[in-house]
Amino acid sequence: MLSVLHIDASARRQRSHTRRLSALFIRHWLALRPQDEIVRRDVGLDPPPPIDEAWIAAAFTPPDRRTADMQAKLALSEELVDEIERADLIVAGVPMYNFGMPAAMKAYVDQIVRVGRTFGFDRSRPGEPYWPLLQGKRLVILSARGDYGYAPGGRIAAMNHVEPHLATAFGYIGITETDGVAIEYDEFSDARLQESIVRAERDTEALATRLARAAQKPLTQVA
Amino acid sequence: MLSVLHIDASARRQRSHTRRLSALFIRHWLALRPQDEIVRRDVGLDPPPPIDEAWIAAAFTPPDRRTADMQAKLALSEELVDEIERADLIVAGVPMYNFGMPAAMKAYVDQIVRVGRTFGFDRSRPGEPYWPLLQGKRLVILSARGDYGYAPGGRIAAMNHVEPHLATAFGYIGITETDGVAIEYDEFSDARLQESIVRAERDTEALATRLARAAQKPLTQVA
Repeated sequence: MLSVLHIDASARRQRSHTRRLSALFIRHWLALRPQDEIVRRDVGLDPPPPIDEAWIAAAFTPPDRRTADMQAKLALSEELVDEIERADLIVAGVPMYNFGMPAAMKAYVDQIVRVGRTFGFDRSRPGEPYWPLLQGKRLVILSARGDYGYAPGGRIAAMNHVEPHLATAFGYIGITETDGVAIEYDEFSDARLQESIVRAERDTEALATRLARAAQKPLTQVA
Repeated sequence: MLSVLHIDASARRQRSHTRRLSALFIRHWLALRPQDEIVRRDVGLDPPPPIDEAWIAAAFTPPDRRTADMQAKLALSEELVDEIERADLIVAGVPMYNFGMPAAMKAYVDQIVRVGRTFGFDRSRPGEPYWPLLQGKRLVILSARGDYGYAPGGRIAAMNHVEPHLATAFGYIGITETDGVAIEYDEFSDARLQESIVRAERDTEALATRLARAAQKPLTQVA
């Protein structure tokens, strides 16, 4: 049995392209692997709070020296980190808002990048003072964008701060294998959007099928 | 008289490099231009909420058709947009958290990128369907990063989703002139950090002086 963490970051309950894509991925996954566990985390409808000064102080205090207040401050973060530790695969529906991830998704990222839990830090270490603590996990990013040309090599790829940012942040904690599918042209609402939706749905199904079929070996080793 | 919008996005009240840099900029500015107005917006200590479905529906409803609930939903956004409309210069202290801006700053960006207020949108328009509605403003980004090499051309510049993301989002609404100063090496806490702080403070003072001295002509035309 594998554990799949299903995240949605869209602020929309209705008419969300990324919610539809992530639900489609999970449906296809379960059709092939009904024994797997799906863990749900909806940061779009229930955004984690931005980290604050007390959170930072608590996170950088060694666990055995944390007060009850500090533990309370980190309670949600511990829960989110537990979920991601347990997950073999993370499937995240993350729309582009103003060229980046929604604020709620960034709040989630800031809650899960945790010293001593998802990355190690030691200033006396030669070379880089930090190292990732997670391994063997894979990330699927399902996105949607108003404009077009944001894919790698595209005309405005440098303006895309969704997948490149997520891949960097998740890579930092050890989740380096990433796949992605995105819908484009949303704001044009024309035939190009319809084509993009059809293509993205087909690619999402194909990705779910490919990963689910290969999942008897570690997901990080799937080509 | 000019209006300067002073934003801080650090979650920290104490020991924040970006708060110190933004305060330093404002101090030098006022020494040269005591007549100017400073408007304060602290998104780090008082984070705007992430936009939600009701916000999106309200923002895309024409103003004369908005219900009282919709107007209430947009009240903070209207206030934030009023501030930025009024500003000639925006001075933003924005630390890097996990390779991007803090979630609170992203929530701010999502609140100020507003159809009909900071950008126009018309699907029937030839070419791009949107255009910026702001003009004549300049943005100063004062940042701080744990690691080093994030500046343009640096060894890990591609992992920096702070300045490039902010410049893209503010550029979209018409704020295309951007300056920046950043402290690096924070997590190493060694002589390199001390040098970086000294250099950043000197550069921040020089930038404030240069812009304040030139401010009799439009700030967007300062070389």
